[in-house]
Amino acid sequence: MQTLLLGPDAVERHADLPAIVDAVSAAFAADARGDTIMPAKSYIDLPEYNGDFRSMPAYVNAGDWDAAAVKWVNVHTDNPTDHDLPTVLGTLIYSDPETAFPLAVMDGTVLTRLRTGAAAAVATDHLAVPDADSLGLVGAGTQAYTQLEAIATVRDIETVVVADRDEQRQRAVVDHFGDRFDVRAGPIEEAAGCDVLSTITPVESPIVDREWLGEHTHVNAIGADAAGKHEHDDRTLLDAKLVIDDYEQCTHSGEINVPWSEGVLDDGDIYGELGSIVAGDLPGRESADGITLFDSTGLAIQDVAAAHVAYENAREAGEGTDFVLVGTDTT
Amino acid sequence: MQTLLLGPDAVERHADLPAIVDAVSAAFAADARGDTIMPAKSYIDLPEYNGDFRSMPAYVNAGDWDAAAVKWVNVHTDNPTDHDLPTVLGTLIYSDPETAFPLAVMDGTVLTRLRTGAAAAVATDHLAVPDADSLGLVGAGTQAYTQLEAIATVRDIETVVVADRDEQRQRAVVDHFGDRFDVRAGPIEEAAGCDVLSTITPVESPIVDREWLGEHTHVNAIGADAAGKHEHDDRTLLDAKLVIDDYEQCTHSGEINVPWSEGVLDDGDIYGELGSIVAGDLPGRESADGITLFDSTGLAIQDVAAAHVAYENAREAGEGTDFVLVGTDTT
Repeated sequence: MQTLLLGPDAVERHADLPAIVDAVSAAFAADARGDTIMPAKSYIDLPEYNGDFRSMPAYVNAGDWDAAAVKWVNVHTDNPTDHDLPTVLGTLIYSDPETAFPLAVMDGTVLTRLRTGAAAAVATDHLAVPDADSLGLVGAGTQAYTQLEAIATVRDIETVVVADRDEQRQRAVVDHFGDRFDVRAGPIEEAAGCDVLSTITPVESPIVDREWLGEHTHVNAIGADAAGKHEHDDRTLLDAKLVIDDYEQCTHSGEINVPWSEGVLDDGDIYGELGSIVAGDLPGRESADGITLFDSTGLAIQDVAAAHVAYENAREAGEGTDFVLVGTDTT
Repeated sequence: MQTLLLGPDAVERHADLPAIVDAVSAAFAADARGDTIMPAKSYIDLPEYNGDFRSMPAYVNAGDWDAAAVKWVNVHTDNPTDHDLPTVLGTLIYSDPETAFPLAVMDGTVLTRLRTGAAAAVATDHLAVPDADSLGLVGAGTQAYTQLEAIATVRDIETVVVADRDEQRQRAVVDHFGDRFDVRAGPIEEAAGCDVLSTITPVESPIVDREWLGEHTHVNAIGADAAGKHEHDDRTLLDAKLVIDDYEQCTHSGEINVPWSEGVLDDGDIYGELGSIVAGDLPGRESADGITLFDSTGLAIQDVAAAHVAYENAREAGEGTDFVLVGTDTT
């Protein structure tokens, strides 16, 4: 038996974004039903290298399919300057849960980018107004592209406003999407007024004021991924229908971690988890709702779902590289 | 940058056992010094498949080298009968701790077998009498071969006695090693009288009586790997200088787990961890010692050490398969 190897190009080619949005949605619903197993992330902190490793194992039973995987990923802040490498490098082992055979080993970096976009799309689908047609992007890095691609699968986005301090990155987004959307560079104030807003910056002091948001804006708060980081005004979090992906992760390192730790915001201010909404246990947007906010930290079940799509599509296309990685001799 | 792929044959070829014994010894010493990071194993229990997954991440700084890895391994009891696959399948991602780049992805099954033998060799080196020349093996499966190979690197083994209920497996060991050792099949009573005894069976009721052991026998208790399993008479554990690999793992699933849970044996009966002996913080065998016993459950730091040897040797030999597994584009 052979294991399928999928490098970043193969993952990019086969990890069809609309299918990942569906699979991530199914994983959130499975989570709400109790059909997932997701141990807490294990951290290996290496201050001598200004970095850490995280292992993220999970199992998802989505009904139509089930799968297990572990993602081994890191944050090494000095990589770009000292080693000409990305800050984050991910590798994922994707396994058949029935036998534990490793069906695939794949790039986890592209996968992480896609499943993060997919979670925002799932949240947007349940929380944005149905006729949302404008998207604001705060932060014009790689994830901005995925946010737009993913959210455009659930709403008919026509207008896009991109804010970034780096004019070159800002212009790159405008140039990239100019053919498909009415896209322009603008200040955060303008991006925040859109029907949907995705914020993707690593800031430790909020940069989006409450009053800049539109009356019914749905916010995907993507940037905060560590204690001390937050992008949004406390008043936004207190006013919004506040949806989180996971209680432990969000209170520890998500958008809400700072106000939650400081007692500005408490558990009573949290509306619920995205999984409960996807599963139908809680309503998503209701007619009386004003602003909504999804605090996304990124779950291992999203990785399993995205890996499932990449693996199945690559297998079906007969692509990827087969390799005898583990012995199957039973003697 | 490319990741080195090492399948089971490549791991077998490059994972030089004497070097692994040294590396595992260095990892135990590093652990005693506080130069390792080893989060608890994460389990994903899948009763519907009569199996589980375990993710085992660790970092080792052995002084001469440091490395990080995660092993993704399982126990699926029905694999041999239902799927013609081994019960245990391991895959390991081996990473440069400075940048987190995945230097290698390799078979973790062969590696597990070798690092388990290596730990017994390290324990034997510190706990057996210096002139030990006989080895008893209880259980004639794959690990029996590795125990003999590994222990022969630290003591001049001349005589070997192999016990197993399965005569064919018993005879296979005799045939395999007949040229190199004075090896014979025998009952457990005879194997237990040797200078060194390795027990490698999955039994839940002890099969080795206290009185069968020699006056100075050192025992490597390898078989117990889950709550409820044990191979040795409680009196052996109480009489022996009792050395464990890890307190949490041994009390939960090692040789001592049953008597420890039942209160037959308590923390005061445990002499110490192997790492403390290797590091020189505790004496190993002393002249007055009678029997000694090493409770081996298998640590993630052993996997890191074994993977280090396999990777470095394969790289030096210019072997293995290079593959672009993760993207390194920083733009």
